[in-house]
Amino acid sequence: MKKVALIMAGGRGERFWPKSRQTMPKQFLALTDSGKTMIQLTVDRISPLVEREDIYISTNRDYKKLVMEQLPQIPEENIICEPVGRNTAPCIGLGAIHMAEKYGDAVMLVLPSDHLIKNTPIFLNTLEDASQTAEQGENLVTVGITPDAPETGYGYIQFSPDQMLGRAYRVDHFVEKPDLDTAKEYVASGKYLWNSGMFIWKISTILDNLKEYLPVVYDGLMRIRESMNAENGQKVLETVFQQLPDESIDYGVMEKAKNIYILGGAFGWDDVGSWLAVGRLQKSNEFGNVISGNAVTVDTRNSIIQGGNKLIATVGLQNIIIVDTEDALLVCDKGSAGNIKKVLENLKICNRNEYL
Amino acid sequence: MKKVALIMAGGRGERFWPKSRQTMPKQFLALTDSGKTMIQLTVDRISPLVEREDIYISTNRDYKKLVMEQLPQIPEENIICEPVGRNTAPCIGLGAIHMAEKYGDAVMLVLPSDHLIKNTPIFLNTLEDASQTAEQGENLVTVGITPDAPETGYGYIQFSPDQMLGRAYRVDHFVEKPDLDTAKEYVASGKYLWNSGMFIWKISTILDNLKEYLPVVYDGLMRIRESMNAENGQKVLETVFQQLPDESIDYGVMEKAKNIYILGGAFGWDDVGSWLAVGRLQKSNEFGNVISGNAVTVDTRNSIIQGGNKLIATVGLQNIIIVDTEDALLVCDKGSAGNIKKVLENLKICNRNEYL
Repeated sequence: MKKVALIMAGGRGERFWPKSRQTMPKQFLALTDSGKTMIQLTVDRISPLVEREDIYISTNRDYKKLVMEQLPQIPEENIICEPVGRNTAPCIGLGAIHMAEKYGDAVMLVLPSDHLIKNTPIFLNTLEDASQTAEQGENLVTVGITPDAPETGYGYIQFSPDQMLGRAYRVDHFVEKPDLDTAKEYVASGKYLWNSGMFIWKISTILDNLKEYLPVVYDGLMRIRESMNAENGQKVLETVFQQLPDESIDYGVMEKAKNIYILGGAFGWDDVGSWLAVGRLQKSNEFGNVISGNAVTVDTRNSIIQGGNKLIATVGLQNIIIVDTEDALLVCDKGSAGNIKKVLENLKICNRNEYL
Repeated sequence: MKKVALIMAGGRGERFWPKSRQTMPKQFLALTDSGKTMIQLTVDRISPLVEREDIYISTNRDYKKLVMEQLPQIPEENIICEPVGRNTAPCIGLGAIHMAEKYGDAVMLVLPSDHLIKNTPIFLNTLEDASQTAEQGENLVTVGITPDAPETGYGYIQFSPDQMLGRAYRVDHFVEKPDLDTAKEYVASGKYLWNSGMFIWKISTILDNLKEYLPVVYDGLMRIRESMNAENGQKVLETVFQQLPDESIDYGVMEKAKNIYILGGAFGWDDVGSWLAVGRLQKSNEFGNVISGNAVTVDTRNSIIQGGNKLIATVGLQNIIIVDTEDALLVCDKGSAGNIKKVLENLKICNRNEYL
């Protein structure tokens, strides 16, 4: 069966502030040594498996221009613009009806645009295996990551190691971000994988499941689909999509549906969740510093310096993140990277939206 | 006897980099809450004691424009421009011959332009007392600061507590920056004061002493003085001054001369020697942060943030100095403020003079 991909690129992440902004989210930033942006790497990665004309980008309409600039090889009609963000279920549903119109049915790969995969061949093999499981009946397939620490920032998926279909395991249930003790139990049990946000299914399967578990979303999607090629198509999209409920595919569908399967992804995965990831993903110098831009460091270790033309001089620092942009500078202790969002909260409270 | 002042403003300090530059030394920076620059504060401070037309500014010719901008009340002819820096003895000598031409003799107050005095009335009384001692014969008078810690960055002056002239003590000798153990002994002995770099003497006295202890400097000064009002005066100044030896008044004259006296300065003194001083001198907020500019701080304590229009956001910092300028940013641990000079050394080595 033909494979088509929906790359979800509507996120507005705040954790790479001040480089990421509402007008420039993480998926459009170059955060690795490659010089390519996260979404460019994502498209490059699946190109051996999916033809470029079968790759769709789902994004907020505010980012259409960025997508076109960064991915000139993707046909403009494959850029699906959400009028507003309504979480992953409406997003995936909107992608699915576009694909249903064009292909009838196909295997649909749903992929985040802002994660990093270290081993592309293993990644592609995993997607191939997942596709086979997806084709064998009405299965919803996902890819899980073997936890290497009791992270409390990820969702977990419990599976049955002894119930396989092809190379996939049957899923027991999805768990939202657990507390630390629970996360430790999960990791120790060997029966949990991290939720990577990747999904593989037939277009027909996901639409059937949306109909069953999220009927309001489904009905809205059908109304949008009916007018899709009509003159008022855009207007209907705007009106109807706006009214759809905010639902994630994980808890709106996956948690409730039958026939959920998961494959372990052994391809080296990083969700690039904060500036700390840049310390892992980019080359560091002999003092453990990851530097881009114009820097002079004195007695500085294990720090991350991301600047531009301005000279950044550091003296006597350890474990500090410095990110300099045209209009805003961040200086943050590595141990406090999770609190960068507090800066944005402060800015919102003070109505300083120009920095968001 | 009339009082005249020579404010020495030729310094090229590096310790306030990146705000201080070769083109913008510390004395021209506003480092206190007053908004006035160090040299403006210095002139304001002595104004009750010395008429504005009797205040001279000695500086490098590169800074003449800055002096005129910051001190419009000082007559242009009172700005004495050194063609090159040759340390304090030639600098003071050049001032002295200008003053001798105009006044014949007078009491000459020599003052640094970049220190902070907390209590101006006590300061002025101290200078009055010093002037009286200077007038009583051929005395060279200085003002010392009672050490409150065994600082190794200052010169020390040993005095005889039982030999007074007016309100001044007889000086035994000048000591260059001591090591820590020696400094501790000095402080414990009660017989040492810090060298503040302030001098009070008659014009005739300092010229006589230069003649005796630094005859090469003196002869050069006399050659400059002879041509001072001639057409080739500027040319003679440039040629001769260039050839003068680099000599400090402390070790070239004060260490060797007789009749040296010192007064204790109980007016609250700060040499504003590094960014740490800004933490002492400017108001801090409830978290111990001293902030100027546009900042959002999260979990940040005891830090110094000096910026401009750019937003500076800090997260999880303690004891960090952040100084942001148009073309250069410094991020420095407070404990390493003494190593800022290493940044400048690196820049020199790499020939990046635009940042010096």
